[in-house]
Amino acid sequence: MKPLGPIPAGYGTVDGELAVGGVPVSMLVEQAGGTPLFVYSRQMLADRVAMLRAAMPKRLALHYAIKANPFLPILEAMDQLVDGFDIASGGELDLVRQAGIDPGRVSFAGPGKRDAELESAIAAGVALNLESEGEARRALAIADRLGVSPRLAVRVNPDFELRGSGMKMGGGAKPFGIDAERVPALIRTIVAAGAQWHGLHIFSGSQALSAEAVSEAQANALELAARLAESAGVPLPHCNLGGGFGIPYFAGDAPLDITAVGVALEERFAALPDALRETEFCIELGRYLVGEAGVYLTRIVDRKISHGETYLVTDGGLHHQLAASGNFGTVVRRNYPVAITSRYGAEPVEEANIVGCLCTPLDRLADKAPVPHAEEGDLVAVFCAGAYGASASPAMFLGQGPAREVLV
Amino acid sequence: MKPLGPIPAGYGTVDGELAVGGVPVSMLVEQAGGTPLFVYSRQMLADRVAMLRAAMPKRLALHYAIKANPFLPILEAMDQLVDGFDIASGGELDLVRQAGIDPGRVSFAGPGKRDAELESAIAAGVALNLESEGEARRALAIADRLGVSPRLAVRVNPDFELRGSGMKMGGGAKPFGIDAERVPALIRTIVAAGAQWHGLHIFSGSQALSAEAVSEAQANALELAARLAESAGVPLPHCNLGGGFGIPYFAGDAPLDITAVGVALEERFAALPDALRETEFCIELGRYLVGEAGVYLTRIVDRKISHGETYLVTDGGLHHQLAASGNFGTVVRRNYPVAITSRYGAEPVEEANIVGCLCTPLDRLADKAPVPHAEEGDLVAVFCAGAYGASASPAMFLGQGPAREVLV
Repeated sequence: MKPLGPIPAGYGTVDGELAVGGVPVSMLVEQAGGTPLFVYSRQMLADRVAMLRAAMPKRLALHYAIKANPFLPILEAMDQLVDGFDIASGGELDLVRQAGIDPGRVSFAGPGKRDAELESAIAAGVALNLESEGEARRALAIADRLGVSPRLAVRVNPDFELRGSGMKMGGGAKPFGIDAERVPALIRTIVAAGAQWHGLHIFSGSQALSAEAVSEAQANALELAARLAESAGVPLPHCNLGGGFGIPYFAGDAPLDITAVGVALEERFAALPDALRETEFCIELGRYLVGEAGVYLTRIVDRKISHGETYLVTDGGLHHQLAASGNFGTVVRRNYPVAITSRYGAEPVEEANIVGCLCTPLDRLADKAPVPHAEEGDLVAVFCAGAYGASASPAMFLGQGPAREVLV
Repeated sequence: MKPLGPIPAGYGTVDGELAVGGVPVSMLVEQAGGTPLFVYSRQMLADRVAMLRAAMPKRLALHYAIKANPFLPILEAMDQLVDGFDIASGGELDLVRQAGIDPGRVSFAGPGKRDAELESAIAAGVALNLESEGEARRALAIADRLGVSPRLAVRVNPDFELRGSGMKMGGGAKPFGIDAERVPALIRTIVAAGAQWHGLHIFSGSQALSAEAVSEAQANALELAARLAESAGVPLPHCNLGGGFGIPYFAGDAPLDITAVGVALEERFAALPDALRETEFCIELGRYLVGEAGVYLTRIVDRKISHGETYLVTDGGLHHQLAASGNFGTVVRRNYPVAITSRYGAEPVEEANIVGCLCTPLDRLADKAPVPHAEEGDLVAVFCAGAYGASASPAMFLGQGPAREVLV
């Protein structure tokens, strides 16, 4: 047996069946027209934002990084919930526009912005988080040609890392941002060029579950921001402290203590140096806002035995759940939380391998998992599917195509 | 420095620039309308098939597993080159039909075939490689309802593995096929039901570079096929010996010695047991046919320095090259063969990290690579991009969308 990850809070049951928003998932599948299906919960998105607002300092604005889940109804729902949006491509700019989001609430980070992407973002009034001196030159030249004053921030490659994070994005050589010691000179160049000086973007890592590590990274970001603003000799209108708030995926993972993060940040805010007194602060979260609010539903097509092991073969797989299959940024594969939806909460009675329909041994949804009995036709739920699922998986692999998606 | 993989034979130069089919890649990019672009070589596909035909026994038919690359012009080209096609989903059935391929030349393997997929395949006259007794029951019931006699083969979960293969698909409990000892009973059921008995499918692994290992697996497959046919007491019309022929991706990899594989197989064919005297044999190759015939071209958007390391940031990335980024079935990331196309074959003068445009540290195309000097605007070529590239990567990630593709 290999343990399953912890099922997020907020899911319910109706007559022993997994339910989202009070509706049994089999009914949601029927309404959607079949499996595989991603179901996202509007209520869980709202609850998550409310919980964050309650825990974080009032002064801290909340941004949604749409890379985590760009499904249009989610963007529209988020427009009512958060203070800003972060995009990472011209394609994502198109998506926020389709959702009716004001481009003035959007900032754009990403190490490989093409000229055409810079142009459409500048023309729309999106704030750019500049990733290099070369990108700054290109952005200023494009803005000059357009005859507009661009909103420019500098993304800093911080000289510290977010300890224990799933992905480190600071501390040493990185493709992201500009090394801290070169930032003051670039700030002065931007201001001298007559651009709208927006501020700093300091992102040191993602998917951390330790409040102490997140607070330490935030403290380091504040210290670095103050140092850079003082050195540049200009005020700092805005500072994006990054994200890094993780969610539990695997057995033994405990949720991030956001109350502790909020208390520590409040203390820091109460003792800000002069350079940051007037600064507007935000954090940029993706996975933390949407990850636990989504579940992936796939139907068992075959139940088979091989050399004494039970296989439940589903009509879904890694083409929608690359990370859950263990093939995206993980070294050792571990099981996400999964369940048999019609026997939700029932005691496990056997060990089964839950696999996808792809003709490759990489396509695994759960290895040697303890499950209640399941047959052909039963639904399997893979939790923590709200972030980096549908859009971060190779949907066209083996001719499969994308899954259905619904926000309820 | 970390070494780069070996560039496949068959690429040329024009005035020091990488060329495919005698055309400089910068011109191919211009014709295609921009980067990122996959270029596949028609000549290299034909040369590869001709080389295989020359090395393998005449009796051995050659199938193309379209999962490796389902680009329509490649399917159309392959229709003139190979003897059969293997598909792994109803979506792939649609693709071979679009390419005008006769469904009678097609077989369908895959562990999670839905009823609708079985129905369209049976109606079209595709041969099914059955993955379980349950699937056999469903296929027979569907054929009965349609009033046709289905072409049914049995996929065997072999009791041996392909040694040294990148992905093992035999030897122990597996989601693929039916354990060997249960196969004779299923064959008798199929024959008794009045279906067209097609034969056996024995696939033990993929991406092997050792001729000895491939030959051993083929010998084991022949031995197993004979044993199963004798035990079932029926002749074996057809036997798919699987694939497993690998290509070199990484420094130190040497090409598979297909001459040795062919000689060994010829010897086996000369001494077949009675049960296999009349059998038609095929191998099923994907990566080996198309992998080296494709190159991925992406343009450098930014050249930047961080903590003394050089980064070449491109407009492509893991959304088209998941495997090259090290995130698909690999434990330790190694560099694929890459080159700066305008200084093709030039001596390296520096070490650079070549990364994609995605805002994630997973998006790496080459780490600490020895390269000639390259600037913004230069093209980077990633080789071995013909298989499991465009269709096996998360194209929609971060709002990017698919790459262009062209067969020249």
